[in-house]
Amino acid sequence: MKPAVGILATLAAGAGALAQEAPYVDPGMKKIAQVAIVCKDIEACSQRWARMLGIQPAPIRTTLPGRRVRMIVHGKPSDAQVKLAFFNTGDATLELLQPLGGPSSWQDYLDQNGEGVQHVAFNVVDLDKTIASLAQQGMPVIHRGRYDTDDGDYVYVDGKSKLGVIIELLHSDHRP
Amino acid sequence: MKPAVGILATLAAGAGALAQEAPYVDPGMKKIAQVAIVCKDIEACSQRWARMLGIQPAPIRTTLPGRRVRMIVHGKPSDAQVKLAFFNTGDATLELLQPLGGPSSWQDYLDQNGEGVQHVAFNVVDLDKTIASLAQQGMPVIHRGRYDTDDGDYVYVDGKSKLGVIIELLHSDHRP
Repeated sequence: MKPAVGILATLAAGAGALAQEAPYVDPGMKKIAQVAIVCKDIEACSQRWARMLGIQPAPIRTTLPGRRVRMIVHGKPSDAQVKLAFFNTGDATLELLQPLGGPSSWQDYLDQNGEGVQHVAFNVVDLDKTIASLAQQGMPVIHRGRYDTDDGDYVYVDGKSKLGVIIELLHSDHRP
Repeated sequence: MKPAVGILATLAAGAGALAQEAPYVDPGMKKIAQVAIVCKDIEACSQRWARMLGIQPAPIRTTLPGRRVRMIVHGKPSDAQVKLAFFNTGDATLELLQPLGGPSSWQDYLDQNGEGVQHVAFNVVDLDKTIASLAQQGMPVIHRGRYDTDDGDYVYVDGKSKLGVIIELLHSDHRP
């Protein structure tokens, strides 16, 4: 999306004049929603983060097997699972991930880089259009699946060479 | 800091009863303040981020030479400089950094990992106490300096092995 489009649309929506003729669609992706760290031992890592921040350790849960959430990694179905923990750290939730085997972008990161920040996540309004736009910008989908609650999608695009990091797109089915 | 202390203090402050006897001191460090990506070409990287987010590219500035801001890297004075750009991405500002030579944690990261998320930053209320606490947790200071505006300090601690990422502590002189 060209920056000028967003600005004009914002002005139009603000003025309330052109809004009905050309409804403003929030492109989303303005706020960092998650910062995700892949780790080898999520229990230990979670304890250390909690101590550092002065808060309680976040609950840890294990995701459903990938086949249950239509997981696709590098174009192929995957049955990978991951342990997850989320810390309430403002707009940008701190996410810890420990891959449990099976093909995934999480395991790829750990194998290639060791522990570190694997991705940065943004909420998206129109998932398909955003995926198409990012593909045009040289950032193809590498890994995706449905939420365990089956009410949304997560999609990783390979932003490493363009932006320095993998981008995760989050889209809730409940979002208008 | 033990989690229980923060919780009890919060309850006390909320009730407004024990607050006078044991004043509540916000330990800070609850919200991710910055997510910082080291890149090789900040102009190109900034353009790509702006396009992806649908916003204007952030202004880019070059920091003062390290000696002007009392920069210390691995215990020794450094004259390193860096190009910086900040994107308004919610509580967690997206920071892009391009090191311009001289010893720095930014250059170390680029040399060892290539482009990627080099650190996550938190605002801190009591800088010296936080540094001491993190050192006790096995996270020593590796790089620090004053803001170019000489009204605050930034301090990087080596959180890589404990937390998966370097932590930056930010402290403004204006903060009470």
